[in-house]
Amino acid sequence: MRVTELDTPVLTVDQDGLEANLKRYHQYFRECGIALRPHIKTHKCLAIAHAQIRAGATGITCQKLSEAEVMLAGGVCADILIPYNIMGAAKLVRLGTLARQCSLTVAADSEYTVAGLGSAAREAGACVGVVIELYQGRTGVESPAAAVALGQRIQAEKGLELRGVMIMPAPPGVRPLLQETLDLFDRQGLPHPIVSGGSTPSALTAHEIPELTEYRVGEYCVGGESHLRRGTHTVEQCALRVLATVVSRPAPDRAVLDGGSKTFSASMLKTDDGPSMGYIVEYPDARFTGASEEHGQVDLSRSVRKPVIGERVQVLPVHPCPCVNEHDEIVAVRQGLVQARWPVHARGCIR
Amino acid sequence: MRVTELDTPVLTVDQDGLEANLKRYHQYFRECGIALRPHIKTHKCLAIAHAQIRAGATGITCQKLSEAEVMLAGGVCADILIPYNIMGAAKLVRLGTLARQCSLTVAADSEYTVAGLGSAAREAGACVGVVIELYQGRTGVESPAAAVALGQRIQAEKGLELRGVMIMPAPPGVRPLLQETLDLFDRQGLPHPIVSGGSTPSALTAHEIPELTEYRVGEYCVGGESHLRRGTHTVEQCALRVLATVVSRPAPDRAVLDGGSKTFSASMLKTDDGPSMGYIVEYPDARFTGASEEHGQVDLSRSVRKPVIGERVQVLPVHPCPCVNEHDEIVAVRQGLVQARWPVHARGCIR
Repeated sequence: MRVTELDTPVLTVDQDGLEANLKRYHQYFRECGIALRPHIKTHKCLAIAHAQIRAGATGITCQKLSEAEVMLAGGVCADILIPYNIMGAAKLVRLGTLARQCSLTVAADSEYTVAGLGSAAREAGACVGVVIELYQGRTGVESPAAAVALGQRIQAEKGLELRGVMIMPAPPGVRPLLQETLDLFDRQGLPHPIVSGGSTPSALTAHEIPELTEYRVGEYCVGGESHLRRGTHTVEQCALRVLATVVSRPAPDRAVLDGGSKTFSASMLKTDDGPSMGYIVEYPDARFTGASEEHGQVDLSRSVRKPVIGERVQVLPVHPCPCVNEHDEIVAVRQGLVQARWPVHARGCIR
Repeated sequence: MRVTELDTPVLTVDQDGLEANLKRYHQYFRECGIALRPHIKTHKCLAIAHAQIRAGATGITCQKLSEAEVMLAGGVCADILIPYNIMGAAKLVRLGTLARQCSLTVAADSEYTVAGLGSAAREAGACVGVVIELYQGRTGVESPAAAVALGQRIQAEKGLELRGVMIMPAPPGVRPLLQETLDLFDRQGLPHPIVSGGSTPSALTAHEIPELTEYRVGEYCVGGESHLRRGTHTVEQCALRVLATVVSRPAPDRAVLDGGSKTFSASMLKTDDGPSMGYIVEYPDARFTGASEEHGQVDLSRSVRKPVIGERVQVLPVHPCPCVNEHDEIVAVRQGLVQARWPVHARGCIR
């Protein structure tokens, strides 16, 4: 079946582009001596996770417990990091069950989280590894001293194993904070076999932080409009594409696509030209400026060529992660031919 | 089971609030003499659609063909409007199949769409009703004269039945455009048994446009933060709520919830206080200012009381429609007790 025969809107991934990204990033991290631990939240898809393991990943990152359960059941790997404060009776039982089946590391930034993790580990008779998150705007402890205090608390909790620290994002500027924290850890005799950085935008500067032992990165494998604009991915390397159809041309300078926020997600990219919801490969001068739920609004005023009603286009979503989560499947294509339909196995795994 | 025993994040609907909204809006439209045709895109859920029919709806609105297929298979009703330009070989076959099973009306704003619909209707041996969309910023024909021309085109197409016009949104200000269009229709002998308005914000001013015969409205049934701020729904009438847990308090004035854009959608509400991603019922002075995929960022600087780690809160999403689409199920509750788990049957129905 040819890609052009697929009904739209449909999410596709170009396997050549995907494989090129895997090769490129895994080679970079190998050369840095940093373990690449892919974040599966981007694709939530067993086939792509398995490809990342084949490319050299020795472990994976999952943002939610349920994602980890799906990946483990799918045989992806037995070394999982969940960089999240996991709490509450229901989740802690599941955490214990998971920890009995794989090498599990989770994050913590509070004594409350640590106490729950400890109970869960002892209840399950399992070992749960813990890394302490350092605050960079999302979650995490506020200072190196607070990290040390929480590290000592973790060491005192039977069933838990202190494994180090994590930070998100990890641009080169975080190095002094990491160095100060690790120095304090060393002085207090706290172990830190894991020093984990994360985020795709700063991935290719990871070598500037030699303290890192591993890196969590998600969108590197498929890219998107933000990666194209940032220069880390070419159009060809932006492997994740929504095929859409122009269903209306209500004015000379406007085209309307058959997908909106329920196809691309409501995620917007701020650009010098205003907000963007995607990059249209065939019409690079067109601007995908907004969307309702099932309609995408395209401004054609700067595009000399203009699509006709019924015409199909390829759109690079702004950010792959929220876009993929809108879809039940990703159609794998190579050289314009459909190769497979990959379920988005961990779609909706929010707990 | 008590609601407080549900693991978080979880999407709930309060049945008392839902039923109060149905009663209130269906009564309003009955008094206006306008048929209320609920838009099921908001909830994508058979149980709520059936409740809307019980409340007096004689037909439903679906934004995509696949939503209509789900609703028809679920026995909701046999009078369906799809206010969308449907095109392409695969969809046109399905359209014909659907038209053989129910009274189907679809929208068109171009000759391209009309030609496809006509072929599909004849191929299926079915009648497809068509309304012409008048442009108000999304899709639609540009002028009353263009509407008349397209109406004549529809009348010339065997298998199609011209049923009138639709407009979206439909605040009182659109009345002159409607009047001008209908006057032209009358002069040309074009029928318009359906004059369809739409959108929740303008729903309760529908009586100011007596030309309307029916109204498409979605979010009225459950409300959300935007409806609370607009004054159409009280907190109690905002029936759709995400239960979330505070998983981190990384700074004195910050709390982090266990749900982000993959739980609430990336939809943002612009307010005088800046962007909002939801209203926290227990902490009305807190501001849910942003989110990453699985973390919600809450600014507590104006809230005297502050939640502790592990505490659960109820959050009204900004807009129900994109939020529901992130979930596999809606938990129905009444008086704090779980009544049912309703699958979001039409989740992911983008084609």
